[in-house]
This record gives sequence, C-alpha cells and structure tokens, in this order.
Amino acid sequence: MRGMTLEATLRGIVGTAHVLKGGDLPAYEVDWRKRWHGRARAIVRPGSAEEVVAVVRACAAHGVSLVPQGGNTGLVGASVPDVSGTQVVLHLGRLNRVRELDAANLTMTVEAGCLLQAVQEAAAAQGLLFPLSLAAEGSCTIGGNLATNAGGTQVVRYGNARELCLGLEVVTADGELWNGLSGLRKDNTGYDLRDLFIGSEGTLGIITAATLKLYPQPGTVSTALATLDWLDAAVEFLGLAQSRLGASLTGFEVMNRFSMDLVRRHFPQLQQPLPAANWTVLLEQSASDRPEDAAQRFEDLLALAFERGLIVDAAVAASLEQSKTMWHLRESIPLAQSLEGLNIKHDISVPISRIPAFVRATDEALERAVPGVRLVDFGHLGDGNLHYNVQAPEGEPADRFLAEREAEVNRIVYDAVMAHGGSISAEHGIGALKREELAQRKSPVAMKLMRAIKQALDPHGRMNPGRVI
Amino acid sequence: MRGMTLEATLRGIVGTAHVLKGGDLPAYEVDWRKRWHGRARAIVRPGSAEEVVAVVRACAAHGVSLVPQGGNTGLVGASVPDVSGTQVVLHLGRLNRVRELDAANLTMTVEAGCLLQAVQEAAAAQGLLFPLSLAAEGSCTIGGNLATNAGGTQVVRYGNARELCLGLEVVTADGELWNGLSGLRKDNTGYDLRDLFIGSEGTLGIITAATLKLYPQPGTVSTALATLDWLDAAVEFLGLAQSRLGASLTGFEVMNRFSMDLVRRHFPQLQQPLPAANWTVLLEQSASDRPEDAAQRFEDLLALAFERGLIVDAAVAASLEQSKTMWHLRESIPLAQSLEGLNIKHDISVPISRIPAFVRATDEALERAVPGVRLVDFGHLGDGNLHYNVQAPEGEPADRFLAEREAEVNRIVYDAVMAHGGSISAEHGIGALKREELAQRKSPVAMKLMRAIKQALDPHGRMNPGRVI
Repeated sequence: MRGMTLEATLRGIVGTAHVLKGGDLPAYEVDWRKRWHGRARAIVRPGSAEEVVAVVRACAAHGVSLVPQGGNTGLVGASVPDVSGTQVVLHLGRLNRVRELDAANLTMTVEAGCLLQAVQEAAAAQGLLFPLSLAAEGSCTIGGNLATNAGGTQVVRYGNARELCLGLEVVTADGELWNGLSGLRKDNTGYDLRDLFIGSEGTLGIITAATLKLYPQPGTVSTALATLDWLDAAVEFLGLAQSRLGASLTGFEVMNRFSMDLVRRHFPQLQQPLPAANWTVLLEQSASDRPEDAAQRFEDLLALAFERGLIVDAAVAASLEQSKTMWHLRESIPLAQSLEGLNIKHDISVPISRIPAFVRATDEALERAVPGVRLVDFGHLGDGNLHYNVQAPEGEPADRFLAEREAEVNRIVYDAVMAHGGSISAEHGIGALKREELAQRKSPVAMKLMRAIKQALDPHGRMNPGRVI
Repeated sequence: MRGMTLEATLRGIVGTAHVLKGGDLPAYEVDWRKRWHGRARAIVRPGSAEEVVAVVRACAAHGVSLVPQGGNTGLVGASVPDVSGTQVVLHLGRLNRVRELDAANLTMTVEAGCLLQAVQEAAAAQGLLFPLSLAAEGSCTIGGNLATNAGGTQVVRYGNARELCLGLEVVTADGELWNGLSGLRKDNTGYDLRDLFIGSEGTLGIITAATLKLYPQPGTVSTALATLDWLDAAVEFLGLAQSRLGASLTGFEVMNRFSMDLVRRHFPQLQQPLPAANWTVLLEQSASDRPEDAAQRFEDLLALAFERGLIVDAAVAASLEQSKTMWHLRESIPLAQSLEGLNIKHDISVPISRIPAFVRATDEALERAVPGVRLVDFGHLGDGNLHYNVQAPEGEPADRFLAEREAEVNRIVYDAVMAHGGSISAEHGIGALKREELAQRKSPVAMKLMRAIKQALDPHGRMNPGRVI
C-alpha cells in the first residue's frame, strides 16, 4: 500500500487496538532493572506468527528496526527500545497458546508469549514436568527464555533453556516464516539453526513458537541445607553428591555468609534452620524410586559428607513446607541485597574445579581496591555459575559507590573471570549492558564469526540493533 | 613461498612423511560402505592445530579444497575426496592427545583425532564415564563424532554428541584458530558457534579439539530383553520405563522379528534367551543407588509391564556376561543383514508417539510396491530413531533389487517420514548421500538460511564442498 504510513499498515495487520503509540509506556519502554529508559515509535502486539511476518515485512519496507519483547524481565537491557523514538517494539504477549502436548513423545509445542509458569502448569496438568525454573517465572515468557538461553536452578540436572528445546518457529529478518518445530530427539539434516537462534537475543530473527522437552514428574523430592567452613569443601561435596545421587541431583546452590546475613537482616521473620556459617549449600534430590529408598540415599549422602569432614551441620526438610522455606531463603537473597542498597552485579561462570581459587583471588583483589567491600556471593555451584555481587562498604552510600567504582570493580572481576577460564555472562546474556565488554573480552576470531553470521542473516541490521554485537 | 608447489609447502608444514600422494590409498579415498571411491591430490596428516592452520592457509593460497577426515567410518560419504584428484584430504589422526581431564569439573579436553574408545577409556581410568557409544567406537574419532553429531545407544539418557560437548577448538575456512574450548556449563556470551560447527560435517571449519562432559560411572547396570506383540505396546512400555526409572533408563532398543530372524540365521551360535516374537525390546538401567534397590526397581518395572499386558515375556541378565550377550544380539543385526545381501538403508526418526503409525503405513506401502519385501526394522526407540532397512524379497538378487528399486523405495519411505513429522537423517548426517534429497525435502527457508551461513563462513567453498549443502 504505497504511501501509507507504517502505523497505518501496522494497524491494518494487527488491528488498531494492538498498535500503541510509544513515548510514555514504561511497561514496554523501561527495563526490569530500570536502567534503560527508551522511547518507541510504536508498540505492536501481533496475534499470530503470520502477523509477525507481516509486521517484520512492513518495518523492513519502511527501513525501521525492531525490538522483540516478551515479559521484559531481562537483566541486560536487550528488550527495550533505544532513546531515538524510531524503533518498533514487537510484543509477543498475544502469542500465548499451547499448540500441542504429546505425552507419549514427552514434548509440547507452545507459542513464544506463553508465560514460563503457564508452560510449567500445562505440563503438570498432564502429570509431566517442564523443568526450566527461575525467579521471574511468573512474568517471563518462554520466547524470552529461549532468546536469552535462560538458566535457573535446575540446570545441574536438566541443562539450560537450550537443552530443553527440540525445535523452533522463527520469523527471519527477511520476513519469512521458518517452521523448524520438531518433536525429534535426533535430526541431523544440516546446520543447527535452532541453537543459532537460541541465545541470539532477537538479533537474528524472532522466535514465535517452540517445541519443548518434557520429563516425568519425579515422585519424591528431598531438600536439605548444609553448612561448610570452606568453599573447597562445597566443591568436594558436589562431587560426592553427583556420584551418589547421579541424575537425581536436581539442585546444588551455594551462598556465602554475607548473603545469608542480608536475609537475616531484612527478612528476620524467615526461619533459618542452621546457625550462620562461612558457606551454606542448598541441596535437592528429585527421585523416581520408592520414597523410603530415596530418603535413605539422601540421608546416607549427608552422613558421609559429615563423616568426611566436608559439612559442619545439616538440616533435612521434613515436609514440603520446610522444603519451600529453604528455597525461600535462597530466593530472598536478590531482594535482601536490593533492600541493603544497589550493588554491582556479576553473573559469571568458571569451571567448577576453579571456583574456590577464583573466589579467593577476587575477594582479595577487591578488598585491596575497596577496603571493607562486602561481597554477596551466591549461585548455582552445580553449574559453576555465581552471582558475584559487590556491595559498598558498610555506611558508604550505594549510589556514590556505583558511580565511582563500577568500572574498576568490573575490571577486577572480569579480569579474574578470564584468568580462570570463565564467562562474563553465564545465564543473563549480553544485551546492551555487556556489549562493549564482550567485544573486548571475546576472542577476535569468535567476534569475526559472529559478525559474519549477523551480516548473513540480518544484512540491514534491523533485528534488535545495538544488542550483543 | 612464491612459486613453491602446494605439495612442497605441505611437506614443509607437516614433514615429508606426513604428506601422502593420492590416487591409490583406499584407506583414505574409499568410504566405509565402499560406495564412494575418490582420488585425492594429496593426503596430509598434521600433528597439531597450528599445523592445521598452516595447511588450510596453504590450500587457500592455491585455491584447493579440503576434505577433513577422522576414522573414515561415516555412512553418508562425507569424509572421502571426490573423483577429481584435486582435493586435499586433511587427516586428523595424529591429533590424538588427551589434553586435560578435570575430574572436579567433570570435563575432559581431547584432540579431534582421538578414537572414541580411547576417550571412553581415558574417562574410565579416572572412574568417570564418557557416555557416547556406537558400533564404530574402536575406529571412529571424536572429531568425526562431533562433525556429524553422532548418536548411538545411550542417547535416551545422555543425548547426542552435541549434548556431550561444552566447547570446541576450530580452524576456520580463513585459516584462523578459534579457541572455543570451555569447561563451562553456562556461557551466554554471544551466538552459539559451538553448535553451528557440530554437525556441519566439515563444511564450515575443521574441529581440532573439544571439551567434553563426563559423568560419574553408574554403579549398577541392569539389562533385559522383553518380547511384545505390538509396536504400540513398545511405546507404552517406554513411557512406563521413563516414569519408573527416570534418568536411570539408559537404553531402550527395539527390533522387529525379521531383524532377530536374520541374527538367528547367520549367527546360530548366539544364544537367544527368548522365543521369536513380533517385537523385541532391549532395556538397560544404569543406577547409582544400592544394587539391591536398583535390581528391585528393574524387576518391578518388568512385572508391571507384564501385568498391564504390554510385554509377553522377559529375560533379565543375571551376569555381566549375559548382559553383553543381549547387547551382542542387538549389535549383530547390521552384520547379519549384510550377510543376507545388500539392502536399502534408512536412518530416520519420527516423534516417538507416531512410530507405530509410521511403521504400519510404511510397511503397507512397501508391500504394495514390492510384494514379499522384507523389512529389517530396528533402532533406538527411546529417541524415535529407527534403522528402517529394506531387503529384497526372499530369493531375489540384492544387486538387481537395489539397482531397480532404490529410488522408488526411498521415495516411499521418505514421503512417509515427512508425513509423520520426521527426519530423513536421524544420526548419520547428510554428506554426499542425501544432499539432493535434503535440498528437496528441507524447508526452503531453512535451506536459504543454511546457504547464507555457508557463504558467510566459507565464501570460497573450500571446506568439504559438495557435502550437506
């Protein structure tokens, strides 16, 4: 339709009610952490993959770039428009159908805008498990989870979002619909396009649906907290748990003393079953054998760890309620730290064997640079993933600390990560936040390959520009 | 070195002893199935990744294309040169070091030319498991396994080669060395280059090393054979086994009557513990709990399957020896069928839930087209992967059958695969064998994306041309 404005064309595609004028819609234009305040030309809410195709083509015809958005819960500024007022936000919330659940194949096909929790619930309604689990699950969408290759608390057993996806439906930068939905566990017919789109943060194409792996619901879940003197003991304890529990080890979280102290300070009503210690581990087993066998195996593991001097103390949840309380302690750390004041966050990973050395070296380097610095160190030890956050010394205003020390602190932490063979983004992605850091830290050969791929699949740079690459 | 021949340059890089003159070296120039007889300009055997870099650059400077080769055990003609006599075979057998084994991180870094069995043994020597397992493991290399995303018998629990790899070292088409070796289970720093190279059959770059995932060795392995009247019962039995055994279900193979009859006929000395039946399942559990608990769980599953009328009869291995015999029966099918005469092989997958319908429909269509046709139908039911092979009617010469009927049989089988949402290559890859079929069967959008990626990463088409794409 020659001469029509983009807005008119978009209204024709998705209906007037689903084209919002940008400029003052914080739900769409401000990120979760409120660090990026953008301004969209328009927000478009298509209702089907075919409408996404038409929107992408319309934007291409007008030379306008697109920012795909799911639950807008990302932590790296990848899902909000820039400040130019020229970008269209493509919101996928209306693509929220469960298209199919195939229990005998242990798969389900869902649209990108389904909330993660809705996906979990649809599986549970059939007695099955979709194991991806993370704090934002009530607000984030499966499309966003896949676009950022989300991690969470069950990775030690089930892998990241990538490992839980068998196939994708994607709208390409050319505005073509690729139906790569597949319920196949083996398919060696050409290049792995699925994994290229997963984790590309909307910079190569727009995920509109996915076929996901499901698992039988485990019958018996056992949870425990254990305290330890040394982080080295936690790594050894993890190895013991892996050899004794095998694949029924579904959670292995670690928290340093200051993390738990913050929870004590800001949530005094939460019962802490164990006295304060240098390190606390949250251990979870999910088993499919007889409950009494599973419970015995779990107790035996803790007894053996105690006998070997790895753990100092332990508390096993005697009920589902107590198990939830234990997880609640762990999950209260992010909020407790923000109640304490803004801090400098890092989502890093290093090989599990090198975590104790990494933490020792980095703690020391930071203490030298910022005497009295406080470290909120917690995370998914079973995956080598720590949220290693740096809080201002007691009494120092957080905003001044961030303004003056963020660059230096990041340099110290990321230098240490690289020296220990690690990653500057374990599960949150790159987005706008770490784009420059990535260009400096990633190998030039890898950056060249990535740029070649971006150029090949999005030659006009219209898919979420300024993110990742 | 201007003016030097390519051969002289290659000898300077890898040493005279490691540049072989092509033309009559069947070990390098003829494929495993002896369907492709090529002729190389030269065979080069570099001793390090740096030498691979130099070889790739030298070939690029002379405009010569490269065919990477590992154990040369592939089944789709991807690892031998074409007949032109112009290609260089890059043989990776001398890159055979285990560079590192990190037990606490459950990873090992190995060079591409390591035999799969050597990788398994190096892990086992540390009490750990590298679970990739397939018939050619004594001859194939880990580089080839990754280049083709090999599958095998343990996929139901551990996934394909792709899922067992955390990082790669690759020489790009530009002759640059990408060190993407990583012992990280979470790393969201940009596009997933690793998975793009895995399964690309040497057409995008040359894998020189990999970091692999290891697992604790399971303590107790239980094996059983069970017979069934219907394939639908096998699918139901699989679901029951998944829900009862969880992740300790490590093998679920299925074999039709004719497969087992061929083993009876050609290997009469092999003891078959159960009478002939329409379908036979080989079931394996690998558990880390107490042996008596594991054995009880396994027996309970079989009792329940019997009670529900899913299985007709079952035999549980009472010793490691008996367990090996059961696997030996299964693994003798490929040889038994070739003793019976050449047949038309298919390595296909469909969603597990659709396997019975697929087999019924395809059996019927083939019987209509070729009355008396005999079907060797066996494979990895737990992954939806069947080796659905078509043997000439009793008494008809195999070579005539292949010459006259192969195209028609392939069309019938692949039409049925597509109609059931399946894949024409589950675990063997595309190579030269299925390249044309792929171009016809794969979605045009996917083919366009694949071509764009090939063009971006290998613009001069020098990496294993004529394969995959």
